[in-house]
Amino acid sequence: MNIDRIQAAAHRIEGHAVRTPLLNAPLLDDMAGRRIFVKSECLQKTGSFKYRGARSAISALDAATRAKGVLAFSSGNHAQGIACAAREMEAPAVIIMPEDAPALKIANTRAYGAEVVLYDRATGDRDAIGAELAGARGLTLIKPFDNEDVIAGQGTCGLEIAEQAAEAGIGAADVLVCCGGGGLSAGIALALDAHAPQLTVRTVEPEGFDDVARSLLVGTKQVNTQMTGSVCDAILTPSPGNLTFPVIQQHCGPGMVVSDDEALRAMVAAFLRLKLTVEPGGAVALAAAMFHSEGDQDVIAVASGGNVDATVFQTALSRFGESN
Amino acid sequence: MNIDRIQAAAHRIEGHAVRTPLLNAPLLDDMAGRRIFVKSECLQKTGSFKYRGARSAISALDAATRAKGVLAFSSGNHAQGIACAAREMEAPAVIIMPEDAPALKIANTRAYGAEVVLYDRATGDRDAIGAELAGARGLTLIKPFDNEDVIAGQGTCGLEIAEQAAEAGIGAADVLVCCGGGGLSAGIALALDAHAPQLTVRTVEPEGFDDVARSLLVGTKQVNTQMTGSVCDAILTPSPGNLTFPVIQQHCGPGMVVSDDEALRAMVAAFLRLKLTVEPGGAVALAAAMFHSEGDQDVIAVASGGNVDATVFQTALSRFGESN
Repeated sequence: MNIDRIQAAAHRIEGHAVRTPLLNAPLLDDMAGRRIFVKSECLQKTGSFKYRGARSAISALDAATRAKGVLAFSSGNHAQGIACAAREMEAPAVIIMPEDAPALKIANTRAYGAEVVLYDRATGDRDAIGAELAGARGLTLIKPFDNEDVIAGQGTCGLEIAEQAAEAGIGAADVLVCCGGGGLSAGIALALDAHAPQLTVRTVEPEGFDDVARSLLVGTKQVNTQMTGSVCDAILTPSPGNLTFPVIQQHCGPGMVVSDDEALRAMVAAFLRLKLTVEPGGAVALAAAMFHSEGDQDVIAVASGGNVDATVFQTALSRFGESN
Repeated sequence: MNIDRIQAAAHRIEGHAVRTPLLNAPLLDDMAGRRIFVKSECLQKTGSFKYRGARSAISALDAATRAKGVLAFSSGNHAQGIACAAREMEAPAVIIMPEDAPALKIANTRAYGAEVVLYDRATGDRDAIGAELAGARGLTLIKPFDNEDVIAGQGTCGLEIAEQAAEAGIGAADVLVCCGGGGLSAGIALALDAHAPQLTVRTVEPEGFDDVARSLLVGTKQVNTQMTGSVCDAILTPSPGNLTFPVIQQHCGPGMVVSDDEALRAMVAAFLRLKLTVEPGGAVALAAAMFHSEGDQDVIAVASGGNVDATVFQTALSRFGESN
């Protein structure tokens, strides 16, 4: 993995991915006592950064391979990114999703024209289901983060942050990134290392799912003991990726951890102050900026996705809408 | 009013106002059977386009006048725009607001450091209150739409639409604009006439508050019979402005009208599909694009503001969140 691969991905996705704005709100700054900039990837096509990696990876396949189709395992955002990018490039897409994925994410994946195969997380073997489908139809598996073209695609978000931070007059700053398997964190870290080394990525995870933070502390890959139990469904992964962890270890600062309630409060702040729909897992970086970040230096938080069910959003507004 | 005045305003507000993105969502297009582009002014500083006109007008004052302070009457978005722009330019700001303005708008206006004077819409005389304050303190009144520098500021949104439509490959199209007094509609229409004459502005108003649509039909300024009774608080004005109506009459197509429920449905669609917080009055243009627009030609809808109370948003989600 190097910066050339990210530049190549940027070239392939240009004109397809949204150059999402770096937003800021005076009243949010007042509350935090520092400037908080939000890279609004929830405004990306399909509602999350995952479209970048999906478009990057599918466009990197040769035409014959692409025409046979692609396969993905995903609880939601990677699924939508793959489904949408595949449709644009006229490639069949099969997505294997857990039955308990958010309804909006399943419905959207189908709406993009993908074939969705549901399985039971407790009893189903998604790898076996995937292997059978891939073998029978010649589909190419696109992993959600342990794929160099996917990481390169997510890195294009970092290229934009480097440019937008310069435009906004941001000097040295932490760039807080919502972290599941680490594809977005690794991609952004590589891009910033090449183009804005004064910006340092720090991963942010939900309490109880802090495998990356613990892995960084210990120096080897750690595994979470649970796979459910947080509202931050988008970023619940068992352990850092094989490709992503070495990059994160080399380029990122210490990992940060926030509670579910802090994520929901950040979601409400994004609604009130930035006018953005952010999903719980996409709000953990903003939560870290608001509740766990010290000093008065500028901070950049990536709002990585916005695919939240209306009922979850209503609950967050009713719990925290008046206290912001 | 002419395009030079809009260019001058663009120069004055550059680096202060956000260049808001023109967003699009494949699933929204699928639903509508045409491409719908949304100019997301809810992402503007203070959460609405009003900041553009406020910054334009206050920055056009000479330094001595500005230092004495500015005065505005507003139920919300103009209030926040003036308060924020005045704070940035170190000018005192006094805002006269109705007691029944949305709580979020009153709180935000105060948070920007403005002095808020509340009055009772039924019994208070806001003009008398304003005249007394202006006389005693030497404040300059900044009207919300009948002010050339305000219209020029709103017109900068039109300059951006002209550029962004070209980038997106949009040919001839209607540009639907949420319309109260007509400052945004007039400003955008003037900018497009100069830079993208193939784009035609059409005003959009809520049912029962369609003074501009009726005025366009009749050819003279008409007055609404009511001032309350719609959830679209941001755009309930009694009649078109003296400066804005001639511009709208010359440059815009027929006015469009949507119901409150259509506005709320559009608000939910913006939440689900575009990941934007849009207030009811800021959603009428998207509602017109979704429910009243015929054919398959591209359409641009301006989402003019996003300052909605959490309780109103929750209600909209609970009524229409599942049906989108």
